[in-house]
Amino acid sequence: MPKKSKTPTVRNAFYAQSGGVTAVINASAAGVIDACRKHRKHIGTLYAGRHGIVGALTEDLIDTSQESTASIKALRHTPSGAFGSARYKLKSIEQDRAKYERLIEVFRAHNIGYFFYNGGNDSMDTAHKVSAISTELNYPIICVGVPKTVDNDLPITDCCPGFGSVAKYVAVSTQEAALDVASMARTSTKVFILEVMGRHAGWIAAAAGLAGGTREQAPHIILFPEITFNRAKFVARVKACVAKQGFCVIVVSEGVKGPNGKFLAEGTTVDAFGHAQLGGAAPEIARIVKDDLGYKHHWAVADYLQRAARHIASKTDVDQAYAVGQAAVEFAIQGKNAVLPVIVRQSDKPYRWTIAPAPLSAVANVEKKVPRRFVTADGFGITAACRRYLSPLIAGEDYPPFKEGLPVYVKLKNKAVKRKLKTRFKV
Amino acid sequence: MPKKSKTPTVRNAFYAQSGGVTAVINASAAGVIDACRKHRKHIGTLYAGRHGIVGALTEDLIDTSQESTASIKALRHTPSGAFGSARYKLKSIEQDRAKYERLIEVFRAHNIGYFFYNGGNDSMDTAHKVSAISTELNYPIICVGVPKTVDNDLPITDCCPGFGSVAKYVAVSTQEAALDVASMARTSTKVFILEVMGRHAGWIAAAAGLAGGTREQAPHIILFPEITFNRAKFVARVKACVAKQGFCVIVVSEGVKGPNGKFLAEGTTVDAFGHAQLGGAAPEIARIVKDDLGYKHHWAVADYLQRAARHIASKTDVDQAYAVGQAAVEFAIQGKNAVLPVIVRQSDKPYRWTIAPAPLSAVANVEKKVPRRFVTADGFGITAACRRYLSPLIAGEDYPPFKEGLPVYVKLKNKAVKRKLKTRFKV
Repeated sequence: MPKKSKTPTVRNAFYAQSGGVTAVINASAAGVIDACRKHRKHIGTLYAGRHGIVGALTEDLIDTSQESTASIKALRHTPSGAFGSARYKLKSIEQDRAKYERLIEVFRAHNIGYFFYNGGNDSMDTAHKVSAISTELNYPIICVGVPKTVDNDLPITDCCPGFGSVAKYVAVSTQEAALDVASMARTSTKVFILEVMGRHAGWIAAAAGLAGGTREQAPHIILFPEITFNRAKFVARVKACVAKQGFCVIVVSEGVKGPNGKFLAEGTTVDAFGHAQLGGAAPEIARIVKDDLGYKHHWAVADYLQRAARHIASKTDVDQAYAVGQAAVEFAIQGKNAVLPVIVRQSDKPYRWTIAPAPLSAVANVEKKVPRRFVTADGFGITAACRRYLSPLIAGEDYPPFKEGLPVYVKLKNKAVKRKLKTRFKV
Repeated sequence: MPKKSKTPTVRNAFYAQSGGVTAVINASAAGVIDACRKHRKHIGTLYAGRHGIVGALTEDLIDTSQESTASIKALRHTPSGAFGSARYKLKSIEQDRAKYERLIEVFRAHNIGYFFYNGGNDSMDTAHKVSAISTELNYPIICVGVPKTVDNDLPITDCCPGFGSVAKYVAVSTQEAALDVASMARTSTKVFILEVMGRHAGWIAAAAGLAGGTREQAPHIILFPEITFNRAKFVARVKACVAKQGFCVIVVSEGVKGPNGKFLAEGTTVDAFGHAQLGGAAPEIARIVKDDLGYKHHWAVADYLQRAARHIASKTDVDQAYAVGQAAVEFAIQGKNAVLPVIVRQSDKPYRWTIAPAPLSAVANVEKKVPRRFVTADGFGITAACRRYLSPLIAGEDYPPFKEGLPVYVKLKNKAVKRKLKTRFKV
């Protein structure tokens, strides 16, 4: 911290969850909380934002010190955002100056000197800007990001917590559904389509490829957002696959685009009133299969199920999510500002990784897509290099405890901190 | 067996999987195989039909004696139909006489005296008819059903193997997705819709109700095929729920029908060419929410994922599936013909069950729907009685082994038996 700061040595900390939640974002929260509790000489109370940054703007803070050790331990195996998350993007300092100033006002009122922001590209950008404006407003705050996104689209880090678990869910689901279709294809469904997340980057779709080892094994076709959809080529491949294997399993990323640059999910369908149909990439692919080939087909859309599926989380992912939470606090205490902990791969097999700091500025707003060398020449599968990269990320199981057939997930008390400001802020 | 039969004491057996597969139908197969192997004094070789009854008609039999003990053990934790299943319904003996006669011809050629048919209502009907015609054709066969259906719509039996696991999958998925939506609702998705299987009976949809204990907890609305969809009432309930809870989780059965008696999934949408849209109940419900309330929403369609999800199978279900397979063989050896083993509930808590024989004729073609007393007065939830019934069926976990992050499911050798007949049969 700069010497001119008048704040005391012990300062409070603020933690917020941002964007779409994951199966392991709470494991990161547990890492942050455990580490803060270890460092009482530096960090007083850790507050969390109710619904992320919205909680900071509205001075709706949660006192995490009210939660028992057992509850924080259970956070590690509880999916979703335990304090509430938010889709709330702060624009540039020029455009959203009042909001940035409000954040500093709230932080100052609660003696908050550390800001841990658990999110994706946008959130890293926000954390970076908060760091800058806090210095400008003479209330310097240590801002550290905690990486999170199911999309795995953050640069620099080898992978991103949240991804490994959705990848495992998708690979397992593809493997299981493919067995189902294989056993029924003689007299029933020939083509099965699974739609997975990934608006711009096809990492989740790629993970489905782990379900099969060869071109003959399901999934037979993966449709990536990085590869423009070619209807004729696709239909030919489905036809050849059904002819040879008797069935065809397709995994389609929600973000697949046609030659016109538009999402396939936008579809060409209208309802009875002429409104554009809500769509979904899977039903659209199903329509193409039906129209061009006439095969009996089924489709599934995993949607939130895939990113909430803590019951089949990857142990690697849980461990990394917790570790980046812990590391964020360690970095902050070391005075590292405007950084985030990233995962550095040491080796593929055995899989070894460490954590290192990276500047927020290098991560903010940059999207890492699936490189062409990870996709087979035909554009429908993953290469050995991709498999080597993905495989360790889904390794290991980390089951939650169960009671009467259902996972036991923790619900925190989420006790509100008394407001100190008279001004209210509407979001 | 009648004395006039000239067949030797030791006769072979035939096992076939029928209809949509489940996470535990192979556990039933393992039960049948293990029991047959124990009773070599009565049963020679157990053959399986490649793709179910189609394998019998085409004389495409699989020699299960070629499979190792380890493989059969692994069958217990492998989803889908390991020998292939079929959607192939035999009509009445009058209408399909040639097919029934062909079955007996194949059974006679391979000295098959026991027929184990693993399926739902239709298959129990077929097994019953095969028993009748075998006597008529002077080649009496002991026909025993093995109950299987994710829909849980078989009468007499307390529940049906296959259901408990899909019920667990749906309850867990609803619980997890609801946590996701709850944490995001402040600034994002307000309504989440999960479509589950159940064309005529709402048992699977009902199972989602286990995820929450009160009216305030998700799922807030369950739409059953047994309850006619009332748009105004539904919309009012969604609105009230979002106003009070901040979000609304809806589980819709694929078989929900509107006041016109038509499936909601048939929808009112057409594509660019005027063709009826492929539909799905979830997107249709989403459209209604959007049109009438304008809330941001998401929807998921679990489709085959739910019935293939062996990774989250119910231990109760696996145990029962195996037990009915074993019991079928025991009944056959005891000379019980045209029966199936059913599950008899002894007590809810602690859950105790036994197995008893029931006549095929009583089960064939009868559908057990969710009784009105299991549905709350408003038609949107499950009652305490329903909960008492369902809860033990999802109890216990029975994880498959994993390797490199994926379940290790067995692939059988499925070695073909040499054909003995010169005539070929086209199906």
